[in-house]
Amino acid sequence: MEPTTGDLTDPLINHADGQLFLHEAFKIIVEEVLCKGTDVKEKVCEWREPEELARLLDLELREKGEPQENLLQRVRDVAKYSIKTSHPRFFNQQFAGVDYHSLAGRFLSEALNTNLFTYEVAPVFVLMEAEVLRGLRALVGWTEGDGLFCPGGSTSNMYAMNLARYRLYPEVKSQGLRSLPQLTVFTSPESHYSVKKGAAFMGFGMDNVILVKGAVPFLVSCTSGTTVQGAFDPLDLIADVCDKHKLWLHVDAAWGGSVLFSKKHSHLMKGVHRANSVAWNPHKMLVAGLQCSVLLLKDTTDLLKKCHCANATYLFQQDKFYDVNLDIGDKSVQCSRKVDCLKLWLMWKAVGSAGLEQRVDKAFLHARYVVDQMKKREGFQLLGDVAPVIKERMMKQGTMMVGYQPLGDRVNFFRITILSPLVSQKDMDFFLDEIERLGNDL
Amino acid sequence: MEPTTGDLTDPLINHADGQLFLHEAFKIIVEEVLCKGTDVKEKVCEWREPEELARLLDLELREKGEPQENLLQRVRDVAKYSIKTSHPRFFNQQFAGVDYHSLAGRFLSEALNTNLFTYEVAPVFVLMEAEVLRGLRALVGWTEGDGLFCPGGSTSNMYAMNLARYRLYPEVKSQGLRSLPQLTVFTSPESHYSVKKGAAFMGFGMDNVILVKGAVPFLVSCTSGTTVQGAFDPLDLIADVCDKHKLWLHVDAAWGGSVLFSKKHSHLMKGVHRANSVAWNPHKMLVAGLQCSVLLLKDTTDLLKKCHCANATYLFQQDKFYDVNLDIGDKSVQCSRKVDCLKLWLMWKAVGSAGLEQRVDKAFLHARYVVDQMKKREGFQLLGDVAPVIKERMMKQGTMMVGYQPLGDRVNFFRITILSPLVSQKDMDFFLDEIERLGNDL
Repeated sequence: MEPTTGDLTDPLINHADGQLFLHEAFKIIVEEVLCKGTDVKEKVCEWREPEELARLLDLELREKGEPQENLLQRVRDVAKYSIKTSHPRFFNQQFAGVDYHSLAGRFLSEALNTNLFTYEVAPVFVLMEAEVLRGLRALVGWTEGDGLFCPGGSTSNMYAMNLARYRLYPEVKSQGLRSLPQLTVFTSPESHYSVKKGAAFMGFGMDNVILVKGAVPFLVSCTSGTTVQGAFDPLDLIADVCDKHKLWLHVDAAWGGSVLFSKKHSHLMKGVHRANSVAWNPHKMLVAGLQCSVLLLKDTTDLLKKCHCANATYLFQQDKFYDVNLDIGDKSVQCSRKVDCLKLWLMWKAVGSAGLEQRVDKAFLHARYVVDQMKKREGFQLLGDVAPVIKERMMKQGTMMVGYQPLGDRVNFFRITILSPLVSQKDMDFFLDEIERLGNDL
Repeated sequence: MEPTTGDLTDPLINHADGQLFLHEAFKIIVEEVLCKGTDVKEKVCEWREPEELARLLDLELREKGEPQENLLQRVRDVAKYSIKTSHPRFFNQQFAGVDYHSLAGRFLSEALNTNLFTYEVAPVFVLMEAEVLRGLRALVGWTEGDGLFCPGGSTSNMYAMNLARYRLYPEVKSQGLRSLPQLTVFTSPESHYSVKKGAAFMGFGMDNVILVKGAVPFLVSCTSGTTVQGAFDPLDLIADVCDKHKLWLHVDAAWGGSVLFSKKHSHLMKGVHRANSVAWNPHKMLVAGLQCSVLLLKDTTDLLKKCHCANATYLFQQDKFYDVNLDIGDKSVQCSRKVDCLKLWLMWKAVGSAGLEQRVDKAFLHARYVVDQMKKREGFQLLGDVAPVIKERMMKQGTMMVGYQPLGDRVNFFRITILSPLVSQKDMDFFLDEIERLGNDL
């Protein structure tokens, strides 16, 4: 029981009780999420209709607290009814799999609970983030530059837009867009929707993505690894055009960036060193865990800080006793910023660049294997729009998960996302067999 | 050792090895961060100059991986040289303290590693986020409405600006700001810098925060709990003006919002139910852990979705087998969005609204106690700018941490942030004694 409020002599939290709870919760996490949740003999999901699930979870928040045993049962329930994204048969999206070193780094980040804005409160992480960014920039081909971890690729893409317009018209920061000519973003129809969302959010307007006659193009946003088809834009060709017209070249490599670890596949991003900025999500192909997204910049003129600084005196005092350039918080539009570098750093230390390369290469091998096998199977000539029905069956049976969508005027197709280092050939075979089994009567 | 890439029969990750590492890392986290890190006999920080720290941590990322024992030592080193923000003598910022139920929720969120954008991949968390938002809205005084967890208060504030301009001029989404009259944000000089940063990022321009003659005011941003002085704007009075002129009233209650749990102190936000939107960071006074920030909305017209949707067909298929209104991802400008509700939900379940009220009340009692004691001590009449020197001494000795800054034309003063449920009267006394001791000869 917690003591009464009026008493100042005791703290409100008891460490022994708290740590006991944490130990018990940790055991449940290992058992339910990491052991059962990755076991092919167990389900990927335990489907429940929303009304039933709400009832099972007893979500209501009440005036009184609950005993520890109840709370541990809640931890079990949350684990039970959540999707097992680390399961080898989760092909649904680009965050499949688990890396234990990354996960340990994430637990440590959570326990340390600090804020990546000053050296004062995050000495280790200010230096670590700089080193991880340096390592990623080196893969892009830059020996200098800048960058930042952002809460997801959409934010990284918005940062690039903001920097590009600021470089062209620094007065935008104080005066806003109304004092500028109409600005336009060029991107392909297959680019991620965040380019359009960002354009709306930042005041350009979604209509000004693609092409408006008479407007001033200020940014070309290429994609390395499109969301649906995994296509790579020809960066070298586009860079030629950007060079000629002095346009900011941004590469949205949220999904595809990790090919830069691979000697075999990095050619897909040939010319990336000519970009001004690159967005790259190690929480996708590298399995670093959500959220882990970086914006990398070639710029060496401190554009990131100039563009975003507001010089808050309560955080960024200039009379500190250490080098205040280590207080990186004014580079961000966020104030509180989570530590997202440690998990990637620890994982990279654990397997080395060589280990990460191996993961990327294996993901490509798996994809190739599935395509080859699919061609050999007669049933894989889809006649109508059967994907939604097959999806419902697989989720209700919980055997696997894979996403579908239409493309252009073609009907729905399955988009199998293969990246988890936990999968192997038998999981690919299972995928094909299972699609056949579930759609057999259609 | 990891197997070679060419072999598709085995996965790249060994669960037994990985889980062993995770267990060992968990032990270190408990020992170093949660036991030693909260022990008043241990230091709050282990100060090192940046060059020395970089050397001690051996940050460089290499081609080859490392043995597990090395990696565990790295976990120990990161813990050792990081700031102990849960230590009872960390008064430096608004993320002090630790709650074990929240921390268990954070570990579980990390292990489940899913994305809060569709019911399909986050069934538990879609329903849970809705319930937590409902509970927080009820404290604001709203029985209906909408909302979202955002990556920090700055983002919540930007969302409010975007919604306010969209309500006034829906065409801004497609056409951008250039088709609109100059828009202005009203806010106080003591408001958080994120209002200005947001205005720059979203294309209004920082000059258009405060007041520009001839411009169209579209949003008033009040503050409940200013960053430096903890002041509360008079919401009822400001709401009268907003009502009259039909302005969007946003309340930045990132810091102060938690007073709504307290019968004794909720009067500080009297009138908050008249606002259109409220930003509130439970990662501050409620100790829910970074990042935990919500935007609450009174709107019942689906403005959040209308304003932000891009209708990506690969995520938000309309032919799904369940109610697609549960796919909340298009309310956000993010695509990947971390699960930030579970930690708050589990903590709330654990101590109830009553327990959270007690924490808020106790934080106020602690603050009152320090002020009363300070008045009794003669030495607390500062004569010159001694804060930077005292700060350097306290960090190099590692005895405690507290922030300082100037205010108006006054010299630097210490801003003591008291919120951790781990502190008690002796920590307040220590704070006062220590400031005296460190500044004794100045």
